[in-house]
Formats: sequence, structure tokens, C-alpha cells
Amino acid sequence: MASTNKAHVVIIGGGFGGLYAAKTLGNKPVRVTLIDKKNHHTFQPLLYQVATAGLSPGEIAAPIRGVLGRYKNTEVLLGDVIGVDTTRNVVQFARNEATGDPGDPGELAFDYLIIATGASHNYFGHDDWARYAPGLKTIEDATEIRRRILLAFELAERRARVTGTQEPINFVIVGGGPTGVELAGTTIEIARRVLNQQFRSIDPARARVILVEAGPRVLPPYPEDLSQSAERQLRHLGVEVMTNSMVTDIGPDHVMIGTTRLPAAVALWSAGVQASPLGKRLGVPVDRAGRVIVESDLTIPGHRNIFVVGDLAAAKSPDGKPVPGVSPAAIQMGRFAAHTILGDLKGKPRGQFSYWDKGSLATIGRAAAVADFGKIHLSGFIAWLAWLFIHVFFLIGFKNRLLVLIDWAWAYVTFQRGARLITGNSDAIAPSQRSTT
Amino acid sequence: MASTNKAHVVIIGGGFGGLYAAKTLGNKPVRVTLIDKKNHHTFQPLLYQVATAGLSPGEIAAPIRGVLGRYKNTEVLLGDVIGVDTTRNVVQFARNEATGDPGDPGELAFDYLIIATGASHNYFGHDDWARYAPGLKTIEDATEIRRRILLAFELAERRARVTGTQEPINFVIVGGGPTGVELAGTTIEIARRVLNQQFRSIDPARARVILVEAGPRVLPPYPEDLSQSAERQLRHLGVEVMTNSMVTDIGPDHVMIGTTRLPAAVALWSAGVQASPLGKRLGVPVDRAGRVIVESDLTIPGHRNIFVVGDLAAAKSPDGKPVPGVSPAAIQMGRFAAHTILGDLKGKPRGQFSYWDKGSLATIGRAAAVADFGKIHLSGFIAWLAWLFIHVFFLIGFKNRLLVLIDWAWAYVTFQRGARLITGNSDAIAPSQRSTT
Repeated sequence: MASTNKAHVVIIGGGFGGLYAAKTLGNKPVRVTLIDKKNHHTFQPLLYQVATAGLSPGEIAAPIRGVLGRYKNTEVLLGDVIGVDTTRNVVQFARNEATGDPGDPGELAFDYLIIATGASHNYFGHDDWARYAPGLKTIEDATEIRRRILLAFELAERRARVTGTQEPINFVIVGGGPTGVELAGTTIEIARRVLNQQFRSIDPARARVILVEAGPRVLPPYPEDLSQSAERQLRHLGVEVMTNSMVTDIGPDHVMIGTTRLPAAVALWSAGVQASPLGKRLGVPVDRAGRVIVESDLTIPGHRNIFVVGDLAAAKSPDGKPVPGVSPAAIQMGRFAAHTILGDLKGKPRGQFSYWDKGSLATIGRAAAVADFGKIHLSGFIAWLAWLFIHVFFLIGFKNRLLVLIDWAWAYVTFQRGARLITGNSDAIAPSQRSTT
Repeated sequence: MASTNKAHVVIIGGGFGGLYAAKTLGNKPVRVTLIDKKNHHTFQPLLYQVATAGLSPGEIAAPIRGVLGRYKNTEVLLGDVIGVDTTRNVVQFARNEATGDPGDPGELAFDYLIIATGASHNYFGHDDWARYAPGLKTIEDATEIRRRILLAFELAERRARVTGTQEPINFVIVGGGPTGVELAGTTIEIARRVLNQQFRSIDPARARVILVEAGPRVLPPYPEDLSQSAERQLRHLGVEVMTNSMVTDIGPDHVMIGTTRLPAAVALWSAGVQASPLGKRLGVPVDRAGRVIVESDLTIPGHRNIFVVGDLAAAKSPDGKPVPGVSPAAIQMGRFAAHTILGDLKGKPRGQFSYWDKGSLATIGRAAAVADFGKIHLSGFIAWLAWLFIHVFFLIGFKNRLLVLIDWAWAYVTFQRGARLITGNSDAIAPSQRSTT
């Protein structure tokens, strides 16, 4: 136990799971340390809006230190946790040159630990595809994708003014889950509604957006009628949907689908997630995606003081249903872990985590979405309105909600997208070099 | 002359000079091509707000293509101009791997040329200082500076939690011109008013902000009473002002002032500007800062069809006064060049450029500024209000004006700064590697 008489809870990760755990423990009789590699929480459900120039990074991200500033029992540390010693109850930091104080033990002791480091992209063994088809998990990913999409039109314009012909501009999005559907719907909107009057040598509306899904339908976790509705709405916007299509290779300018070569000005990856590597280092069983198989109270086997929550956890509700890797589940798990710790301190018996599914929403584009509220299935404008208000409501911070609403109202009325910046790497116009803004 | 019967005006640079030239020529009987390395115009007077986390990049930048989209006679090209052949009347592009169409001649012919490529930092022969003390000219510069300022507090917190003592956090700003004064005033605000409740092991308010000026007073171009007022306002905010102090060396963690070593967690450079290298490649006389010495109609000697405007031009008003390197001057020069071209086409005789000085404003911090309107000198809150409304008024695009006003109102009332993101380079927490968001 720690040197003060209050239990020390260490939380790794400032995503939804970690942040809501910290909020639940705020100003309670524990000491809390939240550690993240980034200084900001990212509102991941709206990342695709940054990637498609609808919102600015600052509108969907909030400094963790600011969000938790009012909890006097909570400290926030910028740091990269590389391991957990589950015997000695310490987390281990990456040795850092910049902070390299000789007195820094590179360790932090905990009484309770909540691991919420989430997931990143899974290229299923083809990590070399990552540079040609970036995924969307961080602000940096989003600004890189934005750069590639906008640059594709700029380069096509330059070529067309010399050759007199518009070469194909194909955006190939691999993976028909919610992120892929959102990216496809908003990318076609940029081409057809936002940029259409702004080029002289090309017609941006002739760009193709191709959504490639290995399975038989888009939005696989949704009920079949909503998948069909989503596909209809996508096609109506102009997206080409290819289902039952397996990607076999990705290169700098193409995507191979089976043995067919599809030229791609930009390829994007939304086909799979891989749990954070920290899970495998705990020495307990993980599933194929690297997620930690947790007990019914979200702890790891044999360590009742170590919780895993959010996308890193392979959890089941008491009815045997797996908990999905969505933000509401992460929030619920983070809160559950925090309440369990507070209950322990009061000597209460532990409960079992049960995911409360409030419904799922996936947006497709302007006034296009699907919503699954159990028996009620919504499509089109009404689903989109529901999606809009729920997402804006959950956006952290009143000011951001206001800014996001203004941005959206403006974009809706004018078809303008305000955040169309190509930034990073000021000298190179070539899209090969990765950089961010 | 170009192949169509309308004169072709090529504009290099989408800053204030180039953009206002293009706007003036919009939908007039000429063809216009504006070329810039970036796809966006940057509202440079507010860059320091991005650097100090008050505004997001998207709020002070606008896609050039969007700003000029309604002018059907105008095309926008993303490109890097490396030279001008003043004999053959063509501009030369950098060969670009990505656009490397074999048919691309890498050249663009013009009838008239307006060069408005501006200026960058001048380290007076010490280019190795640039990595330790970045300057502020682009969105990328601003996000890099933001990253360094915020990271300095994060690293100090990590060290202090191990050692139990707060090491000095010094922000050293070299150069007491308007940018240096703005950076100093807003950086001390972050330390004392924004972050003060959000750290547990350090007191951010104990950070020092030191403004170093080689000359005898800050804001050298301003009247002496306003310089004195600015220095008083800076000291009141908590900034340490060192005048008559010459920087002799800058290293990764220090700035040498004469023979005194000043530890610096972050050093910033705002001490000098250097005109864009394109000026020297024109084969006409340039001044010591590399600015092109232009005729009274802003053309270069011997080439009545080639104009140089904005910070790249060393121009004089008819009264012999040099035109200052400020945004209003660039706007006036851009408009003058455009009107001169339109006048040529109507057979009108050319006039002489004359700068109309509407006054100068420099902001210092929250409700602190100085304003020089000739006989009227303002200081403090009134000057700050004048500054606020003039700058927001000129911000391109109604939506951005609204967002910026909301951000400011919010920050003013709550002392929050919303754009506190450390982005770029997701793995490295060390500040040594340059990257952007």
C-alpha cells in the first residue's frame, strides 16, 4: 500500500474508459493518477469529421488536465507506460531522454490499476500497408487523412491543366464498419458538394469513392435492414459499395481486390482493430485481437486490483453477450471499475459488469444515418438528427459543443467545410511523407 | 502574350499581398493564376494565438481555393515556384515527384507577374539556432511552438513528482517586436491564469517569461511613449523585459546573453525577418534583408510587367518613407499592382504607390495593448478592444469571425484556452523532434 493512508488508483489511458473512471473517482477518498501518452482526450466518434475537414482538431479534443483540473485528488501525467509488474504492483514508464532525471525510478506504484489503453489499427499481418492506407484513431491520423484527401484534388488539378484530361481520382476505403461508412459518405460530399465550384481544370464531382467490405454487407454489427438502408443511402450519395470483396494487397497508388487492381489516389483503412500491446504484457490470456479476457468484474485473473476497461477488454455481460468496442461501453466499464474500487473501500461485495445497450447510431453523410434502438430502427434525416444531438451532447465542454454546432449549421447551409487545411511538411507537396497538423 | 486574348496575370503567394491582388482582379477582363506552396491563406497577425493555444489553426486559416472560388477567371494552383525567367516571361516550378507528369513543362507563362512570397525568419547567419528557437510564420510553426510551451509544463510536472522540487521553467523570447511582445504576454498568461490550478507537483505560475531585445526598447517601430507603456504592461503581467541585451548563442536548453547563460525550457525567435529567396533570383538589386528594391509602381527595374508586393518588396512612398512590413501595407500593395495592371489594359498612365498608414496596434495580453494612430496614442484596455475588433473584422470569412469571437469571449471570462493540444509525433514525448499539428 502507498505511503499515505488513501488508496492510490492509477489509470492508464485518457480515452473514454480512463477518463470516465477518473471522473467517477474525482474528489472521492482515493488518490488518482491518470497517465496518457497524449495531453488530450480525443472524442473518437467525430474523428472522421476532422479527417474530412468538417471540424478542427481543437473542437473534438480537450486537454485531460483541463477536464480533470477540478478534482484535487487527481493528478495527470504525460507518459508512456510500457509494462505492468503485477507482482510488485508498479507500472513501468518508458525511459525518457527529456525527463531523464537520474532520480526517476521509471516506475509508479499503485493499489488499484485501471488499464484503458484502447486499440489501434489491425492490418492482419500486413503492417506495410499502413503507410499507403492510414487508419483513423488519433488527431494525427485525422489530419494526415485530411491532407491526403485534399492533396489528391490539388495534384489532379495540376496534372489536368498540363495534360488537358482529368485522371481518375479514386478514394478507396477498406472496411465497411461505422468508420468506413462515415469516411465514404463525407468524402463523396467533399467531392460533389464542397469542392465542385472551386477547380478549373478538373471536375471534383467526377472523383469516385469506393467502399470495400470483405463481408456480405456494410455495418456488420447492425440489423440487416439497417445495413441495407445504409448501403442505399451511400449509393444515393454516390458511393460505390463493394461487398464480399477481399483486399489482397495495397500499394502506393492502388488497392488489389482479389486479383483486380483498383487505382487509388488515396486509400484509407478501417477494416480492423488491434488491442493495445500493453494487454499482452500482463501475462494473462488475450483473444485473437489482443484483448485481455477479463473476469465478470473486469479484473484480470488472479489480480482483483487490476482492471481492464474499454477496447482493450474482452468482456462479456452476464447474459454471455460480448461487450462491443464502442464508446458507451468504454464509459460504462470505466465507471464500473471506479465504483467497484469505491465499493471495496467501503467493504461492499463486488458486482458483475453488464453492458447497457442504449442503441447504436452510424452517420453516413449530410442528413443520412441509421439508428438501431432495439425494436426501433431509424434511417435518413431523423436518424441523422438523433446522431447529431447525441454526439454533440457528449462532446466534452460547453464551448466545444457550441463551436461544433456552429460549424455544422454553417456547413449544412452553405456546403462549406471550414477546416480544409493541408498542413505539415511545408516543403513537400508529395503525399508520400507522413506528417500532421 | 498568352494564347487567349485576355492577359494572363500570375500571382505567386497567397498571403495578404497576393490574395488581395487576386481579389482585385477577380471577374475582371484578365486570366488569373494564383500559386502557393500551401492550400491556405494564413491570417498571420493571429498566429501567436495558435502558438499560445488560444485559437485553433482552422480559425485563422482559410483555403485559398475557397476564398477565390467565386471568381471564374481565377485558378488556384498548389505549387512551389523556384524561379522566374524574366526574359521569357515564365515562372519555373519545382519538379515534383508526385505530379511528375512527363508532359509537365514545369513552367507557366505570364503576361503580368505579381510576386508576393513574403518573408521568413532571419537568424543572422546562425541557422543552427532555428531548431532550438523556432520562429512564427506558418501554422506549422505555431503548432510546434504550442507543443513546446505545453510540453515544458508537462515535463516539469513529471520531474517534480520524482524530485520533489520544481526546476526553473524559463520561456525566453528573443526579439521585442510586436510578435515577441504578443508571445511574451500570452505565455505568461498561460502560466499564471490558465494552467495554475491544473498541476499537482509544480506551480505553473512560477514559470518565468523573459523577453530579450537587443535595442534599447520593446516595439522599436512605435513611438517611445508607447514602447514604455508596452514595457510597463508586460512587467505588470509578470514578463521580465531585458533590453540592450544581445543574444550570442542558443543551445538546446539555454540562451546566451552576452556572456551570461540563461537556462531556457523553451526559446522562441522573433528577432528578424529574411525575405523569400525568390527575390534574389530575379537578378535585380535587393537590400540587406533580401527584399527586392522596387520602382515607384512596385515593378522591378526593366520589367514593367513584373511586380513585387508585400514583405518581399523594399518600397518607398513618394515622400521617401520606407513602406513597413505589415499586413495593411501588403494588402495596399497587392491592390495597387492589380489596379495598375487593369489600368494598363485600359491605356491609363501608371501612378506611384503610396502607403496609407491607418495606425499600428500591438497586443500584449488580456486587455493589454498599445495603439498608435498618429497623434492619438492608446494603451491598455481601450487599445486592446480596438485591436480585437479590427483583427476579428479582417479575419477572412464570417464563420471564422464568429468562432474567434466565441473563443475569445470564452477565454476572457473563464481563463480557459481551448486549443491546448500537444500533437504530432505521437511516440516521442521529448521536445527535440520537430513535428506539427
